[in-house]
Amino acid sequence: MEDNSYVTVKGSVYKSKQKSHRRRWNIRPSEMSINTLNPIRAIVDGMKLTPNPEKAMIALSIGDPTVFGNLPTDEKVSQALKDAIDSHKYNGYAPSVGYQKSRDVVANFYSCPEAPLEAEDVVLTSGCSQAIDLAITVLCNPGDNILIPCPGFSLYKTLAVSLGIQVKLYNLLPEKSWEIDLQHMESLIDDRTTCLIINNPSNPCGSVYSKEHLKNVLSVASKNCIPILADEIYGDMVFPGCKYQSMASLSSDVPILACGGLAKRWLVPGWRMGWILIHDRNQIFGKEVCPSGLVKLSQRILGACTIVQGAIESILNDTPQEFYYRTISFLKSNSEICFSELSTVPGLTPVLPAGAMYLMVGIEMEHFPEFQNDVQFTERLVTEQSVFCLPATAFEYPNYFRIVVTVPEEMMVEACARIREFCQRHYRPCSQDSNELDQ
Amino acid sequence: MEDNSYVTVKGSVYKSKQKSHRRRWNIRPSEMSINTLNPIRAIVDGMKLTPNPEKAMIALSIGDPTVFGNLPTDEKVSQALKDAIDSHKYNGYAPSVGYQKSRDVVANFYSCPEAPLEAEDVVLTSGCSQAIDLAITVLCNPGDNILIPCPGFSLYKTLAVSLGIQVKLYNLLPEKSWEIDLQHMESLIDDRTTCLIINNPSNPCGSVYSKEHLKNVLSVASKNCIPILADEIYGDMVFPGCKYQSMASLSSDVPILACGGLAKRWLVPGWRMGWILIHDRNQIFGKEVCPSGLVKLSQRILGACTIVQGAIESILNDTPQEFYYRTISFLKSNSEICFSELSTVPGLTPVLPAGAMYLMVGIEMEHFPEFQNDVQFTERLVTEQSVFCLPATAFEYPNYFRIVVTVPEEMMVEACARIREFCQRHYRPCSQDSNELDQ
Ligand SMILES: Cc1ncc(COP(=O)(O)O)c(C=O)c1O
Ligand SMILES: Cc1ncc(COP(=O)(O)O)c(C=O)c1O
Repeated sequence: MEDNSYVTVKGSVYKSKQKSHRRRWNIRPSEMSINTLNPIRAIVDGMKLTPNPEKAMIALSIGDPTVFGNLPTDEKVSQALKDAIDSHKYNGYAPSVGYQKSRDVVANFYSCPEAPLEAEDVVLTSGCSQAIDLAITVLCNPGDNILIPCPGFSLYKTLAVSLGIQVKLYNLLPEKSWEIDLQHMESLIDDRTTCLIINNPSNPCGSVYSKEHLKNVLSVASKNCIPILADEIYGDMVFPGCKYQSMASLSSDVPILACGGLAKRWLVPGWRMGWILIHDRNQIFGKEVCPSGLVKLSQRILGACTIVQGAIESILNDTPQEFYYRTISFLKSNSEICFSELSTVPGLTPVLPAGAMYLMVGIEMEHFPEFQNDVQFTERLVTEQSVFCLPATAFEYPNYFRIVVTVPEEMMVEACARIREFCQRHYRPCSQDSNELDQ
Repeated sequence: MEDNSYVTVKGSVYKSKQKSHRRRWNIRPSEMSINTLNPIRAIVDGMKLTPNPEKAMIALSIGDPTVFGNLPTDEKVSQALKDAIDSHKYNGYAPSVGYQKSRDVVANFYSCPEAPLEAEDVVLTSGCSQAIDLAITVLCNPGDNILIPCPGFSLYKTLAVSLGIQVKLYNLLPEKSWEIDLQHMESLIDDRTTCLIINNPSNPCGSVYSKEHLKNVLSVASKNCIPILADEIYGDMVFPGCKYQSMASLSSDVPILACGGLAKRWLVPGWRMGWILIHDRNQIFGKEVCPSGLVKLSQRILGACTIVQGAIESILNDTPQEFYYRTISFLKSNSEICFSELSTVPGLTPVLPAGAMYLMVGIEMEHFPEFQNDVQFTERLVTEQSVFCLPATAFEYPNYFRIVVTVPEEMMVEACARIREFCQRHYRPCSQDSNELDQ
């Protein structure tokens, strides 16, 4: 591209320092845009998803609780938004970290004696996604690495890799209700590990960690001096009988950025209201990280819509308990239907969830020799039965698929029946099994 | 940090490849957070802004037209939002680039025969800020440079520098109503220049470029093969008698990413609704840049609130013309009051704007020997007269200050009177002038 010519000055030839100009168009996508990878899109776009024309399509693939209309948000929540509009007070710019009053409301809602919060500890963001983005961005430099769960929500890797940050995947153990393999996790830590992401309750597993397990996770973080990004967007969405414990309420020293939002529990993911709760009672982050670093990063594009910010006081304080209870009961009931149906399907091993809105199902691939992997399995499930589940390869976890349990009950039942039919048709006893029978 | 120990194996000493762990907390803010600089905050936070207790504060500093309540948005606009809520159709996730229908509406609103647009050419974003962020991010790599106006809106530099992209400032000429010094601009181009940012109408200048000037800008871009980011957030906000021309409508080859949004013209900056209009009739960007690159980047944190997206059809199509007209007439009238008042103040040289909501005022510093610069000048204006204007050092343009003309008329008049009193008090004829008088 250099466009250097030579000039003669007083008899000597010099390379002229003329500025070089492009002579033809040559616009390239940036490295960051090239490195922004969405595994779900990459996999789904590569699949042949032509449903069986004889059967109506049932999509158990989308982590959006609103798509079927059976889980509307509460009327109070909508009313709060309309009141915020009518007040005419929320049309202007809010501070980049959110209105003081709104931060205060979120702080009060999540404050507890073991992990007290004030308005200054809250940064309001455009969805939990921006919360995660800001948290990773403030803690990590290119070349650093973060530890993320496997299987896990794909956004962590998408964001990190786009920023030049490496990811290392720590294993979750399906046989232990998706608890973290702590030894494996710890073995991954090196001195460029700057953040440990814990997602509880989990997408895609629907798992909810016990107090003891969370304490063990904290021990590893504490011993190795790694801060935690706690993705608690499904916080409090746990089934009756199970208890949700926030990471921060158990931490004595480990500093925690807890990310959350309205998307799931209040059933309004499109509203893009999220937050970071800064838990750092021992001032380990240092002021330049939190709040300063977060505040500076929040000024790049600002955060959540002011109307939603204006409504948040009423949304958090006035939504009736029955609303939360109704959602959770529905999710639990649907999960149980799905689990008990699929438990008796030969070749499948569903894992019972305890919260969130997902259920993972293992595929005993050796019994389905027609299919090479979960992607082919789920693809053919669409072609034959018009049921679409996300292959867990999208969560870096082959030979499983994920079911979203927010669909209406009759759809859930019908989908399970079709999955059973599909499996019965393609199931083959293993040769070893037949040998055993022969003996 | 390396924690290597030695082990003896069969008589030989080896450096063990033991993983090193941190032994104490040492969390540092990332380079990106350190490099996210907000010049306005840096300057304003460093100023002593204690108003004169005898006079009520008048802030002419904030680019938010809603703060004084005299410029409410139209009732139709608020109603559109409430209708979107009541429809219950806009609570779920939208595609990351926005609902197809909403993109279609924006495309139709801005399409013109010279620069036709379709839904596919529109990316909806969280405010114009995210539009600018995505546009810079898709076009530039660390080490590249972009050309930005001086004086200019500070966000361009904030975003670019945080991404490791250099900025080069091209001069605007106050004596030519802030037209671009094209020669200077062209002299800055080198082969790492990947984007030319043009802001028309301008913040902080209030200038509006003629068709001819825009064509000349396009010639420079075309000759050097540099794409344009046209920040047209104040598009159509021009005073009667003046004509606004979009960059894209004049371009024959130069590909343009035009950034805009609802913030200014519809007086709802807090709603965070922005967009990128992709103008690339000759397919110069290449599919990997637009739309692909933009689509991928939009998936990082998603974009605008779905309720606002749902309302946009009605906002764009049903807002009465009188609303726009009323806003513009008000801004024009206030600008004229301010300009004519300050024109007769010794030591000040206001530049008449033709659009947007700002007016720049030059300070003949040689006549104000008490003050070293615009920052000291505006600081003392607060202390003595309780009037706050942003020193144009915040726009990389010392010895000017910016006035926001959205304040109620009586405040504008009062502020001008106080500025006059302040200048009269501190004005000193130059020694040269006195010499001339002496002769
Ligand atoms: C685990 C997890 N974290 C974060 C998010 C993103 O939430 P939001 O829509 O508020 O950005 C999701 C969305 O599905 C999620 O499943
Ligand atoms: C020139 C210019 N561009 C972009 C923006 C940002 O607009 P938004 O609030 O929609 O992000 C502003 C806001 O003041 C501006 O003045």
